[in-house]
Amino acid sequence: MKKINILSKYNKFNDHWSPHFISELNGQQVLIAKVKGEFVWHSHKDEDELFHVIKGKLKIEFRDKVVELLPGEIIIVPKGVEHRPCADEETWILLFEPMTTKHTGDNVSEITKSNYPRV
Amino acid sequence: MKKINILSKYNKFNDHWSPHFISELNGQQVLIAKVKGEFVWHSHKDEDELFHVIKGKLKIEFRDKVVELLPGEIIIVPKGVEHRPCADEETWILLFEPMTTKHTGDNVSEITKSNYPRV
Repeated sequence: MKKINILSKYNKFNDHWSPHFISELNGQQVLIAKVKGEFVWHSHKDEDELFHVIKGKLKIEFRDKVVELLPGEIIIVPKGVEHRPCADEETWILLFEPMTTKHTGDNVSEITKSNYPRV
Repeated sequence: MKKINILSKYNKFNDHWSPHFISELNGQQVLIAKVKGEFVWHSHKDEDELFHVIKGKLKIEFRDKVVELLPGEIIIVPKGVEHRPCADEETWILLFEPMTTKHTGDNVSEITKSNYPRV
Protein backbone atom coordinates (compact mmCIF):
# COMPACT_ATOMS: atom_id res chain seq x y z
CA MET A 1 0.00 0.00 0.00
CA LYS A 2 2.20 2.74 -1.35
CA LYS A 3 1.43 5.98 -3.06
CA ILE A 4 2.07 6.28 -6.78
CA ASN A 5 3.28 9.44 -8.47
CA ILE A 6 1.46 9.35 -11.79
CA LEU A 7 3.56 12.04 -13.47
CA SER A 8 6.86 10.34 -12.71
CA LYS A 9 5.59 7.13 -14.33
CA TYR A 10 5.35 8.82 -17.72
CA ASN A 11 9.13 9.29 -17.72
CA LYS A 12 9.64 5.54 -17.75
CA PHE A 13 8.55 4.88 -21.34
CA ASN A 14 8.27 6.65 -24.67
CA ASP A 15 6.27 4.43 -26.99
CA HIS A 16 2.91 5.68 -28.23
CA TRP A 17 -0.43 3.88 -27.94
CA SER A 18 1.08 1.38 -25.55
CA PRO A 19 -0.80 1.38 -22.24
CA HIS A 20 1.26 0.75 -19.13
CA PHE A 21 -0.26 -0.81 -16.05
CA ILE A 22 -0.26 1.26 -12.86
CA SER A 23 -2.57 -0.57 -10.49
CA GLU A 24 -5.77 -2.56 -10.04
CA LEU A 25 -8.80 -2.12 -7.82
CA ASN A 26 -12.18 -3.81 -7.77
CA GLY A 27 -11.47 -5.60 -11.04
CA GLN A 28 -10.63 -2.32 -12.75
CA GLN A 29 -7.23 -1.29 -14.04
CA VAL A 30 -5.50 2.07 -13.95
CA LEU A 31 -3.39 2.53 -17.07
CA ILE A 32 -1.30 5.36 -18.44
CA ALA A 33 -0.25 5.95 -22.04
CA LYS A 34 1.48 8.43 -24.27
CA VAL A 35 -0.38 8.90 -27.52
CA LYS A 36 0.33 10.73 -30.78
CA GLY A 37 -1.24 10.37 -34.20
CA GLU A 38 -4.33 8.33 -34.95
CA PHE A 39 -5.37 5.14 -33.22
CA VAL A 40 -7.81 2.65 -34.78
CA TRP A 41 -11.58 2.62 -34.70
CA HIS A 42 -12.81 0.17 -32.11
CA SER A 43 -15.31 -0.42 -29.34
CA HIS A 44 -15.45 -2.47 -26.15
CA LYS A 45 -18.53 -4.65 -26.09
CA ASP A 46 -18.90 -4.94 -22.33
CA GLU A 47 -16.71 -2.23 -20.85
CA ASP A 48 -17.10 1.49 -20.27
CA GLU A 49 -13.77 3.30 -20.54
CA LEU A 50 -12.65 6.50 -18.81
CA PHE A 51 -10.10 8.79 -20.46
CA HIS A 52 -8.42 11.47 -18.33
CA VAL A 53 -6.02 13.85 -20.06
CA ILE A 54 -2.92 14.70 -18.02
CA LYS A 55 -0.93 16.68 -20.62
CA GLY A 56 -1.48 17.73 -24.22
CA LYS A 57 -4.76 17.45 -26.12
CA LEU A 58 -6.74 14.33 -26.94
CA LYS A 59 -9.32 14.16 -29.67
CA ILE A 60 -11.78 11.31 -29.51
CA GLU A 61 -13.60 10.75 -32.74
CA PHE A 62 -17.05 9.21 -32.57
CA ARG A 63 -19.12 8.31 -35.60
CA ASP A 64 -21.20 11.47 -35.18
CA LYS A 65 -18.88 13.96 -33.49
CA VAL A 66 -15.41 14.74 -32.20
CA VAL A 67 -14.66 15.62 -28.57
CA GLU A 68 -11.45 17.48 -27.66
CA LEU A 69 -10.08 16.98 -24.17
CA LEU A 70 -7.55 19.18 -22.40
CA PRO A 71 -5.66 18.46 -19.16
CA GLY A 72 -8.03 18.00 -16.24
CA GLU A 73 -10.83 16.85 -18.51
CA ILE A 74 -12.32 13.36 -18.61
CA ILE A 75 -14.79 11.48 -20.75
CA ILE A 76 -16.43 8.12 -20.30
CA VAL A 77 -16.94 6.15 -23.50
CA PRO A 78 -19.84 3.77 -22.86
CA LYS A 79 -19.61 0.11 -23.78
CA GLY A 80 -20.36 -0.61 -27.41
CA VAL A 81 -19.64 2.90 -28.67
CA GLU A 82 -17.17 3.08 -31.54
CA HIS A 83 -14.39 5.56 -30.98
CA ARG A 84 -10.98 6.54 -32.31
CA PRO A 85 -8.57 8.46 -30.08
CA CYS A 86 -6.21 10.85 -31.90
CA ALA A 87 -3.64 13.44 -30.85
CA ASP A 88 -1.83 16.01 -32.99
CA GLU A 89 0.90 16.43 -30.37
CA GLU A 90 2.17 13.90 -27.83
CA THR A 91 -0.50 13.61 -25.19
CA TRP A 92 -0.44 11.87 -21.82
CA ILE A 93 -3.56 10.06 -20.75
CA LEU A 94 -4.76 8.05 -17.81
CA LEU A 95 -7.26 5.26 -18.45
CA PHE A 96 -9.63 3.56 -16.11
CA GLU A 97 -11.40 0.44 -17.32
CA PRO A 98 -12.19 -3.17 -16.38
CA MET A 99 -9.29 -5.63 -16.35
CA THR A 100 -11.07 -7.49 -19.17
CA THR A 101 -10.93 -4.56 -21.60
CA LYS A 102 -9.12 -5.37 -24.84
CA HIS A 103 -6.74 -2.78 -26.28
CA THR A 104 -8.46 -2.43 -29.67
CA GLY A 105 -11.67 -4.31 -28.90
CA ASP A 106 -12.35 -6.86 -31.64
CA ASN A 107 -10.38 -4.84 -34.19
CA VAL A 108 -7.16 -6.80 -33.75
CA SER A 109 -4.11 -5.88 -35.84
CA GLU A 110 -0.35 -5.61 -35.55
CA ILE A 111 -0.69 -2.58 -33.29
CA THR A 112 -2.81 -4.43 -30.76
CA LYS A 113 -1.18 -5.02 -27.37
CA SER A 114 -2.35 -8.12 -25.56
CA ASN A 115 -0.75 -7.28 -22.26
CA TYR A 116 0.46 -4.11 -20.68
CA PRO A 117 3.83 -3.75 -18.96
CA ARG A 118 3.72 -2.68 -15.33
CA VAL A 119 5.36 0.69 -14.85
CA MET B 1 -21.39 11.38 -23.79
CA LYS B 2 -19.85 14.70 -22.93
CA LYS B 3 -16.49 15.64 -21.53
CA ILE B 4 -16.25 16.74 -17.94
CA ASN B 5 -13.85 19.41 -16.70
CA ILE B 6 -12.88 18.12 -13.27
CA LEU B 7 -11.30 21.36 -12.06
CA SER B 8 -14.34 23.47 -12.85
CA LYS B 9 -16.52 21.12 -10.79
CA TYR B 10 -14.66 22.03 -7.60
CA ASN B 11 -15.94 25.60 -7.93
CA LYS B 12 -19.51 24.43 -7.51
CA PHE B 13 -19.35 23.57 -3.81
CA ASN B 14 -17.42 24.48 -0.68
CA ASP B 15 -18.34 21.99 2.01
CA HIS B 16 -15.64 19.69 3.33
CA TRP B 17 -15.77 15.89 3.49
CA SER B 18 -18.84 15.86 1.29
CA PRO B 19 -18.23 13.80 -1.85
CA HIS B 20 -19.93 15.02 -5.01
CA PHE B 21 -20.87 12.61 -7.77
CA ILE B 22 -19.25 13.16 -11.16
CA SER B 23 -20.01 10.03 -13.15
CA GLU B 24 -20.40 6.25 -13.13
CA LEU B 25 -18.81 3.49 -15.17
CA ASN B 26 -18.81 -0.26 -14.79
CA GLY B 27 -20.50 -0.03 -11.39
CA GLN B 28 -17.82 2.33 -10.13
CA GLN B 29 -18.32 5.97 -9.21
CA VAL B 30 -16.11 8.98 -9.81
CA LEU B 31 -16.42 11.41 -6.92
CA ILE B 32 -14.74 14.68 -6.02
CA ALA B 33 -14.42 16.26 -2.61
CA LYS B 34 -12.83 19.16 -0.79
CA VAL B 35 -11.34 18.08 2.50
CA LYS B 36 -9.80 19.89 5.47
CA GLY B 37 -9.18 18.72 9.00
CA GLU B 38 -9.56 15.17 10.19
CA PHE B 39 -12.06 12.64 8.92
CA VAL B 40 -13.08 9.55 10.93
CA TRP B 41 -11.43 6.17 11.12
CA HIS B 42 -13.25 3.70 8.92
CA SER B 43 -12.84 0.90 6.42
CA HIS B 44 -14.83 -0.49 3.51
CA LYS B 45 -15.41 -4.20 3.91
CA ASP B 46 -15.77 -5.08 0.25
CA GLU B 47 -14.44 -2.12 -1.68
CA ASP B 48 -11.00 -0.90 -2.66
CA GLU B 49 -10.84 2.89 -2.83
CA LEU B 50 -8.63 5.09 -4.99
CA PHE B 51 -7.60 8.57 -3.79
CA HIS B 52 -6.11 11.00 -6.33
CA VAL B 53 -4.92 14.37 -5.07
CA ILE B 54 -5.70 17.28 -7.42
CA LYS B 55 -4.64 20.21 -5.20
CA GLY B 56 -3.22 20.58 -1.70
CA LYS B 57 -1.86 17.76 0.44
CA LEU B 58 -3.70 14.73 1.74
CA LYS B 59 -2.51 12.66 4.66
CA ILE B 60 -3.96 9.21 4.99
CA GLU B 61 -3.40 7.70 8.40
CA PHE B 62 -3.25 3.93 8.64
CA ARG B 63 -2.92 2.04 11.90
CA ASP B 64 0.80 1.53 11.27
CA LYS B 65 1.86 4.49 9.14
CA VAL B 66 0.90 7.78 7.52
CA VAL B 67 1.11 8.42 3.78
CA GLU B 68 1.27 11.99 2.43
CA LEU B 69 -0.05 12.59 -1.05
CA LEU B 70 0.67 15.61 -3.25
CA PRO B 71 -1.05 16.60 -6.50
CA GLY B 72 -0.59 13.95 -9.18
CA GLU B 73 -0.22 11.22 -6.61
CA ILE B 74 -2.65 8.37 -6.00
CA ILE B 75 -3.08 5.60 -3.48
CA ILE B 76 -5.37 2.61 -3.43
CA VAL B 77 -6.68 1.66 0.00
CA PRO B 78 -7.55 -2.04 -0.16
CA LYS B 79 -10.86 -3.34 1.15
CA GLY B 80 -10.91 -3.91 4.89
CA VAL B 81 -7.99 -1.59 5.67
CA GLU B 82 -8.74 1.02 8.33
CA HIS B 83 -7.81 4.52 7.30
CA ARG B 84 -8.37 8.14 8.26
CA PRO B 85 -7.89 10.89 5.67
CA CYS B 86 -6.68 14.25 7.02
CA ALA B 87 -5.60 17.54 5.51
CA ASP B 88 -3.96 20.53 7.19
CA GLU B 89 -5.00 22.84 4.36
CA GLU B 90 -8.00 22.58 2.05
CA THR B 91 -7.26 19.77 -0.35
CA TRP B 92 -9.08 18.68 -3.49
CA ILE B 93 -9.36 14.98 -4.12
CA LEU B 94 -10.83 12.69 -6.72
CA LEU B 95 -12.15 9.31 -5.58
CA PHE B 96 -12.77 6.18 -7.55
CA GLU B 97 -14.69 3.38 -5.86
CA PRO B 98 -17.62 0.99 -6.32
CA MET B 99 -21.12 2.49 -6.27
CA THR B 100 -21.77 0.41 -3.14
CA THR B 101 -19.05 2.10 -1.08
CA LYS B 102 -20.37 3.73 2.09
CA HIS B 103 -18.99 7.14 3.06
CA THR B 104 -17.67 6.16 6.50
CA GLY B 105 -17.98 2.39 6.19
CA ASP B 106 -19.74 0.98 9.24
CA ASN B 107 -18.63 3.91 11.38
CA VAL B 108 -21.86 5.87 10.95
CA SER B 109 -22.25 9.24 12.70
CA GLU B 110 -23.72 12.67 12.12
CA ILE B 111 -21.02 13.44 9.55
CA THR B 112 -21.91 10.45 7.40
CA LYS B 113 -23.41 11.25 3.99
CA SER B 114 -25.78 8.65 2.63
CA ASN B 115 -25.98 10.06 -0.84
CA TYR B 116 -23.81 12.34 -2.86
CA PRO B 117 -25.12 15.33 -4.84
CA ARG B 118 -24.37 15.27 -8.55
CA VAL B 119 -22.11 18.15 -9.53
